[in-house]
Amino acid sequence: MTRPEIPFSTEDHRWMRRALAVADQALFVSSPNPRVGCVLVRDGRWLAEGSTQRAGGRHAEAQALHEAALEGVDVRGATAYVTLEPCSHTGRTPPCADALIAAGVARVVVALRDPNPKVAGTGIGRLRAAGIQVDVGLFADDALAQNPGFCARMTRGTPWLWLKSASSFDGRTALPDGRSQWITGDAARDDGHRWRARSCMVLTGIGTVLADDPMLDVRAIETPRQPIRAVLDTQFVLGEQARVINGDPVWIFTARPDAGKAARLAARNVRVIALPADAHGGLSLEALMRWLGEHEINEVHVEAGARLQGALVQAGLVDEWVAYLAPCLLGEGQGLAALPSPITGLDQAYRYEFLDVMQLGRDMRLRLREPARWRALVGACGLKTG
Amino acid sequence: MTRPEIPFSTEDHRWMRRALAVADQALFVSSPNPRVGCVLVRDGRWLAEGSTQRAGGRHAEAQALHEAALEGVDVRGATAYVTLEPCSHTGRTPPCADALIAAGVARVVVALRDPNPKVAGTGIGRLRAAGIQVDVGLFADDALAQNPGFCARMTRGTPWLWLKSASSFDGRTALPDGRSQWITGDAARDDGHRWRARSCMVLTGIGTVLADDPMLDVRAIETPRQPIRAVLDTQFVLGEQARVINGDPVWIFTARPDAGKAARLAARNVRVIALPADAHGGLSLEALMRWLGEHEINEVHVEAGARLQGALVQAGLVDEWVAYLAPCLLGEGQGLAALPSPITGLDQAYRYEFLDVMQLGRDMRLRLREPARWRALVGACGLKTG
Repeated sequence: MTRPEIPFSTEDHRWMRRALAVADQALFVSSPNPRVGCVLVRDGRWLAEGSTQRAGGRHAEAQALHEAALEGVDVRGATAYVTLEPCSHTGRTPPCADALIAAGVARVVVALRDPNPKVAGTGIGRLRAAGIQVDVGLFADDALAQNPGFCARMTRGTPWLWLKSASSFDGRTALPDGRSQWITGDAARDDGHRWRARSCMVLTGIGTVLADDPMLDVRAIETPRQPIRAVLDTQFVLGEQARVINGDPVWIFTARPDAGKAARLAARNVRVIALPADAHGGLSLEALMRWLGEHEINEVHVEAGARLQGALVQAGLVDEWVAYLAPCLLGEGQGLAALPSPITGLDQAYRYEFLDVMQLGRDMRLRLREPARWRALVGACGLKTG
Repeated sequence: MTRPEIPFSTEDHRWMRRALAVADQALFVSSPNPRVGCVLVRDGRWLAEGSTQRAGGRHAEAQALHEAALEGVDVRGATAYVTLEPCSHTGRTPPCADALIAAGVARVVVALRDPNPKVAGTGIGRLRAAGIQVDVGLFADDALAQNPGFCARMTRGTPWLWLKSASSFDGRTALPDGRSQWITGDAARDDGHRWRARSCMVLTGIGTVLADDPMLDVRAIETPRQPIRAVLDTQFVLGEQARVINGDPVWIFTARPDAGKAARLAARNVRVIALPADAHGGLSLEALMRWLGEHEINEVHVEAGARLQGALVQAGLVDEWVAYLAPCLLGEGQGLAALPSPITGLDQAYRYEFLDVMQLGRDMRLRLREPARWRALVGACGLKTG
């Protein structure tokens, strides 16, 4: 648990919870920017609120001030509840700290300090230098949990990655011959598309593309933006008729780039990225993650076969699992993860912790998180770990 | 949902819920008798209550009347809330219907009619003949869910059977070499012993006895009685030093009884039961279930290897699963159930429905129920099925 630096009032708790809920509105919207919420309050009365708009659009603070202005609401002397430290640099938009100063707010309550170590505290410093009271740390854990990908990219340089699986309750994702349509039901599928929608990138392996020819896009729910779709294709054997090539951006990661094929595909919005191979002839998954971190990918949703899932597990790159279980038993079939080097003792088991469980139609969704990686992220963001 | 035959009052609901909670006190106690609760109430005031005592002891109604007498409470004119129809026959104890009549109660509210088709309604009839108002059907589903084994034995002649499993979340109960200690933690183990304790019989296969040499008794929690422990041992190869042979009753089911060995084991409280083999040379699981039904076994807790679990699944004898999942991934290993004839299409998957889910320490417990078998039981007990 994080201990706030100063005691916060019941009112503070109430409005910051509201700001977190407002930030949730940006779940499918804001990347590569973090999801942030801002609520403006004076004398216990709500004045305006806003969440991060699409990249290039207003940040949460600017959006809340914009909404207030549209309604003719005077925000001078107000308190701004913001889930992430207001920015102090001019990017695609002007600095939010300056906007809050210009608007004349009296106090800013911040949940989470900017996770980027190079800029952490500068927004807060600028506000304080302007005479504004700034209180930091209320619901910092929750703000971090809302933006694990952005925070991971800012602190460790790589995205936050989860594996999605759909299996029988005895852990079979497909019959031995690969048939898997459908083990889980509509509600689980819709929820799976929500996880796709919040991610920056949906990643699969070439084996899944060859076997199932998936689209990998978000179809089951409405979304204002589609994630990048990506295929790990070490030998670059992707067929040019694959359904994933649909005009929207696709990234192909390969160790064998073929200039002619890449040029043909480029015309169809497919980007081919060469990465080094690892010692076993596969693509270096570490190099992949670093590349993604350098290219503004916050959250990676992996929906692949047991081989790629197992390789990611064994490479130590998995932060979470989103595991859908159907209430059926298959007995035999493909597993959730085929480890390149099987474990030889229970002490080598890959250990996670259950985060939550939810019934979706007839199915169950289990979320699991890798505790050491989460603790490292919490620590890197300046929060105390339990 | 069951529609009660007459509208019940809020008071009626309140006191029958209390009677169900009282019946729960007999969970580890009453078998082969059903778990029953009785609450005596007059003018909205609680007078006394009781639950089924150990076999040969008082039934719930007699216990409640006994408690009232001990306290010198006059129960004439009271309403008795009983979760199961009072019995009308003299078994090890006198008929409860007569005891209620003699005590002068004015009204009896019954949750579930006696599931035994030969006696259903006779207790109610005897009460009504004595001028007592009897109202039937309040929370009948809940009373049935409390006693699925007793009701199954009375209606279909066989016990209610669940499979217990403990696995990683990717469905591995052991490493490929069989090591499984420990995948799940203490809280899951304690809960597993609660399921053993409520059962009449803990059943395993000879493979598990040879591999793990388990005791199969209830140790992790307090219990007033131990279930019978039983081993399916078609070839009767059980070692006479097996730890399961500890002086308490053990039943061995075999197709190859050996009179000398059986006599030696009999002196150590082991009963050897010969059953016919099936067409494949295994023990007939159907014959086993009939035999158990004829010998007062209400609930069977199966804790076995994938082979026996799979055989029971494929034989269509599984009513429920109690599946513990640890938040770890093993990748390879033994599955929950090895079907004797693997399925060849997803339409042949064995389908259940999730009943509930509960976190136990770091682990998760999923309960699943076979819907057709539950519906059949509900129907056989005279309740309408949803």
